[in-house]
Amino acid sequence: MAKAEKPNRKNDQAALLEVFANPHPGRDYEIEHIAPEFTSVCPKTGQPDFGVIRLIYTPDKKCVELKSWKLYLQSYRNRGIFYEDVTNVILNDLTAVLAPRTMTVISEWTPRGGIRSVIRCNYQK
Amino acid sequence: MAKAEKPNRKNDQAALLEVFANPHPGRDYEIEHIAPEFTSVCPKTGQPDFGVIRLIYTPDKKCVELKSWKLYLQSYRNRGIFYEDVTNVILNDLTAVLAPRTMTVISEWTPRGGIRSVIRCNYQK
Amino acid sequence: MAKAEKPNRKNDQAALLEVFANPHPGRDYEIEHIAPEFTSVCPKTGQPDFGVIRLIYTPDKKCVELKSWKLYLQSYRNRGIFYEDVTNVILNDLTAVLAPRTMTVISEWTPRGGIRSVIRCNYQK
Amino acid sequence: MAKAEKPNRKNDQAALLEVFANPHPGRDYEIEHIAPEFTSVCPKTGQPDFGVIRLIYTPDKKCVELKSWKLYLQSYRNRGIFYEDVTNVILNDLTAVLAPRTMTVISEWTPRGGIRSVIRCNYQK
Amino acid sequence: MAKAEKPNRKNDQAALLEVFANPHPGRDYEIEHIAPEFTSVCPKTGQPDFGVIRLIYTPDKKCVELKSWKLYLQSYRNRGIFYEDVTNVILNDLTAVLAPRTMTVISEWTPRGGIRSVIRCNYQK
Amino acid sequence: MAKAEKPNRKNDQAALLEVFANPHPGRDYEIEHIAPEFTSVCPKTGQPDFGVIRLIYTPDKKCVELKSWKLYLQSYRNRGIFYEDVTNVILNDLTAVLAPRTMTVISEWTPRGGIRSVIRCNYQK
Amino acid sequence: MAKAEKPNRKNDQAALLEVFANPHPGRDYEIEHIAPEFTSVCPKTGQPDFGVIRLIYTPDKKCVELKSWKLYLQSYRNRGIFYEDVTNVILNDLTAVLAPRTMTVISEWTPRGGIRSVIRCNYQK
Amino acid sequence: MAKAEKPNRKNDQAALLEVFANPHPGRDYEIEHIAPEFTSVCPKTGQPDFGVIRLIYTPDKKCVELKSWKLYLQSYRNRGIFYEDVTNVILNDLTAVLAPRTMTVISEWTPRGGIRSVIRCNYQK
Amino acid sequence: MAKAEKPNRKNDQAALLEVFANPHPGRDYEIEHIAPEFTSVCPKTGQPDFGVIRLIYTPDKKCVELKSWKLYLQSYRNRGIFYEDVTNVILNDLTAVLAPRTMTVISEWTPRGGIRSVIRCNYQK
Amino acid sequence: MAKAEKPNRKNDQAALLEVFANPHPGRDYEIEHIAPEFTSVCPKTGQPDFGVIRLIYTPDKKCVELKSWKLYLQSYRNRGIFYEDVTNVILNDLTAVLAPRTMTVISEWTPRGGIRSVIRCNYQK
Repeated sequence: MAKAEKPNRKNDQAALLEVFANPHPGRDYEIEHIAPEFTSVCPKTGQPDFGVIRLIYTPDKKCVELKSWKLYLQSYRNRGIFYEDVTNVILNDLTAVLAPRTMTVISEWTPRGGIRSVIRCNYQK
Repeated sequence: MAKAEKPNRKNDQAALLEVFANPHPGRDYEIEHIAPEFTSVCPKTGQPDFGVIRLIYTPDKKCVELKSWKLYLQSYRNRGIFYEDVTNVILNDLTAVLAPRTMTVISEWTPRGGIRSVIRCNYQK
Repeated sequence: MAKAEKPNRKNDQAALLEVFANPHPGRDYEIEHIAPEFTSVCPKTGQPDFGVIRLIYTPDKKCVELKSWKLYLQSYRNRGIFYEDVTNVILNDLTAVLAPRTMTVISEWTPRGGIRSVIRCNYQK
Repeated sequence: MAKAEKPNRKNDQAALLEVFANPHPGRDYEIEHIAPEFTSVCPKTGQPDFGVIRLIYTPDKKCVELKSWKLYLQSYRNRGIFYEDVTNVILNDLTAVLAPRTMTVISEWTPRGGIRSVIRCNYQK
Repeated sequence: MAKAEKPNRKNDQAALLEVFANPHPGRDYEIEHIAPEFTSVCPKTGQPDFGVIRLIYTPDKKCVELKSWKLYLQSYRNRGIFYEDVTNVILNDLTAVLAPRTMTVISEWTPRGGIRSVIRCNYQK
Repeated sequence: MAKAEKPNRKNDQAALLEVFANPHPGRDYEIEHIAPEFTSVCPKTGQPDFGVIRLIYTPDKKCVELKSWKLYLQSYRNRGIFYEDVTNVILNDLTAVLAPRTMTVISEWTPRGGIRSVIRCNYQK
Repeated sequence: MAKAEKPNRKNDQAALLEVFANPHPGRDYEIEHIAPEFTSVCPKTGQPDFGVIRLIYTPDKKCVELKSWKLYLQSYRNRGIFYEDVTNVILNDLTAVLAPRTMTVISEWTPRGGIRSVIRCNYQK
Repeated sequence: MAKAEKPNRKNDQAALLEVFANPHPGRDYEIEHIAPEFTSVCPKTGQPDFGVIRLIYTPDKKCVELKSWKLYLQSYRNRGIFYEDVTNVILNDLTAVLAPRTMTVISEWTPRGGIRSVIRCNYQK
Repeated sequence: MAKAEKPNRKNDQAALLEVFANPHPGRDYEIEHIAPEFTSVCPKTGQPDFGVIRLIYTPDKKCVELKSWKLYLQSYRNRGIFYEDVTNVILNDLTAVLAPRTMTVISEWTPRGGIRSVIRCNYQK
Repeated sequence: MAKAEKPNRKNDQAALLEVFANPHPGRDYEIEHIAPEFTSVCPKTGQPDFGVIRLIYTPDKKCVELKSWKLYLQSYRNRGIFYEDVTNVILNDLTAVLAPRTMTVISEWTPRGGIRSVIRCNYQK
């Protein structure tokens, strides 16, 4: 399991993320949000990519607000970014905003050239 | 795995829960009740939420009576409460009443805004 | 089964469609192309919609070229259009370009507000 | 296939239904809305019932607006009504408002007493 | 499709069936009840048989009351009767009591000797 | 649908089939027996073949007794016979013994050389 | 994992269980028998319950004979006993007869009141 | 359903097909061979295509020998040919060799550019 | 995990097994062969048994040749042997011939008397 | 988990592999590419083999470029190589080029002679 990576830029997209206070901070528990409607653009071919973004975390003081999470994910709709990069960037943005106890981001992509890809990143405080 | 959290209120709903004596207290064994017909109300939008409540526990001296468990879950039908909160509140109510050896409550929700959520809490004596 | 409807505008999107000569015009046979990566925008909420576009037709003199069909579907990515409308418009555009013997367009959408929709249109020469 | 039945009352619930003009009235095409989050109450036991409401119709001049359809279905949340009755009442309400070319309403219910039920009604102009 | 067969005996089991008035007799519609917890006894081996009883009918003036239907099916629990016979007897009992417009009874059995069986009977007024 | 074919030999295997009187000869109803444990031998390679034999018929005066049907199918265990042939032979043997109103025999085979086969024969009185 | 519990009675049902000598006592290996046709009676409502009994064990000197296991399970057909109790009683009966190295009994029940239950017990020598 | 099309060339591949005499020519019955390991080459991109070839026919005097059918399909491994064309060519080759009563060839392809295709051709004597 | 058991006889069947040299002996890797077409005979009833044999091993110096493995499994076709026994005997035969680093044999059987069984054995050098 | 094995030859196929710099080398994360369209040739029979190649790795400084990975896999299309060998060779080639922190290659093959095989190799720095 990896250590925290410094958020590589204070991008505009991260500013979309809103938080609310964890209603049960005394307990370690797990929140999972599964977003099967993620789409971005391949920087090489200009073609759209489609995937599922799976977020799993144990909150500390803050939880991500669900609608802002949706809008954050939608902000990638017309942005060019590779599979490996976007999965790490999402993890970096969210750990910077939430400071969770643990967090995992998994992206599962539809096939390109007959091959489908899955990227899995995690963070431990 | 989290420690026990103090039940945050002696609510009316918890009073619905009835227990019976564990018929085999000498053995650590696991009871799971899966309730796919849970519904509550989103406090923000006023719209109904729908989910599956999965309860898994190792009883100590008491077991939860199945019909009272159903009525307890039904008492959320017209109550506004968020995903993260209701999952923890159910765990708190049940651990207060049963004092189990271990207990897990998992809620799995139908999609909202294209995103589906799962919350997992557990308790260890 | 409905009669042909007049294409309601010579739009720019239809210009993306390319054809090739049916290699076996002497036989009535069926071609189906299933595109699970369709996305457009809801004109009312501005939110993205996601669906599968299923095209089934019996060609007469022309077949639709597969890459141009993909680009045509991608041209809806940032366009606001309702479920019922887009399904009919796609059928109109394609029957205008291909003059097929029969054609069916089916759109199957991911849930919104807990409800998922399917629209089915067909055309007979 | 049955003839139209007179709407048995101008109920308050039907007033929730809103329509929009069919954008392609020149073609017979099919619209299906599948609502897996329907819940009403059993008049006999007072217990909640859960089901899927499947609506399939060929519009004439009007289509049902999707959000109003959701609110209409939600209005049964705390109303006591039997399986057979509610399926017919929904069909009556909707044919009265939309005057469709054809319409089918199917309700599929979760098990009660180990038995699950499905009711299928249709209407032809 | 077969004509009605005379109920071969006024058995005690049929007396368990209760009816209610069809709330929408003006329309031909379909009611299906699927009972996966049917069990009877093989008259030859004395071993229990297990199956699903699927009832599909278009009511005329009467509908079968669901709880009485469950009790009727339970009355076979310790009775010896063959697959082919029980499926026809159920159809005979129910058509005698309900006088439906059409009715189908299907029984689907778990494997015996590596072979699984399905029996399908129907009745048309 | 094909006419009856003359049983091409009074083989020993057919002698294994036993019948019982149809308990409901006044009604046309359907009996299906699905046997997923069929095995015979390929006459060309000497290798075993494995398949599912699906029998569907409307009895007239006689039904096939289930245990004898199992023994009949087992009698092919070490016999060399091709897919197309065995499916027709089973149909011939059974129609000779039962004189059913209609009968279908379907054999579904596991893959050989990456190809799986299905043979479907039927008979109408 | 729990220690052995004393068999709470030398019941008649346990007398149905027959054993055979483990043919390979020198090796720790696992035997699983899955019985999806279990049925007993709810002591509270008098209604039949239906479930799957899954038995997994590592034999020491004895294995349970399969037909006697079936008859033992059938002996619950008309007996009133709760989910939690029957699962433990089966484990107690079987460990008393077999003295296995380890044993697990799992019961998985069909829904009652919209809730389905699973009970898991195990024993370690 | 289409009439027979003249085989557009006496190609070398068709010469691979071998036949055997239909063992039951007196009956109309159906033979299906499903080959999920078909691969050819896209003439435009030079990239391999992968699909399932499903052959369904009612033989007259001849049946196709299964191993020769496999070798015939393998002969496309390094040949450039489009989806629509290869499906029709296979039908033409096979009808020329077998003169069947009816025949259907269906090809189902893995996704390219996020779109998957199915081609269905049939022939009636 | 169990120690090696002495092969209980140098049977004729084991002589069918052929080996080839492990092409990559420097690495611990896993080979799995899944054979769903296994059949033997029940010594008690004389009836055929059907199962899946799953072999998983880490080779040391030798790998089992796939065709000889198939012929070895076929040699049980007409041999009477119990579930528990055959699974252990296969493991003994194969470990004697291959001397693998680890090996697991799992047999999964079709239902008999409504009960299906799974046997799992393993070996560690 | 095995140690690295020396790449057994600097073959032409490995030269097809292209890399790009890991955009997030500071974190241990997992990349999985699933290629269901792999085909090679059996060296013994000359018949084509078909399988899925599953690659899972934690990159260090380099990631494999997806298109080059596809072309590398395609280079086996007409090459004779056994299941066990090709899985290890792919792992050797890729670890030589990428020097990953960990890597797993799994090949899952379609059935031959009724038996399907899976090979799993891994590498740890």
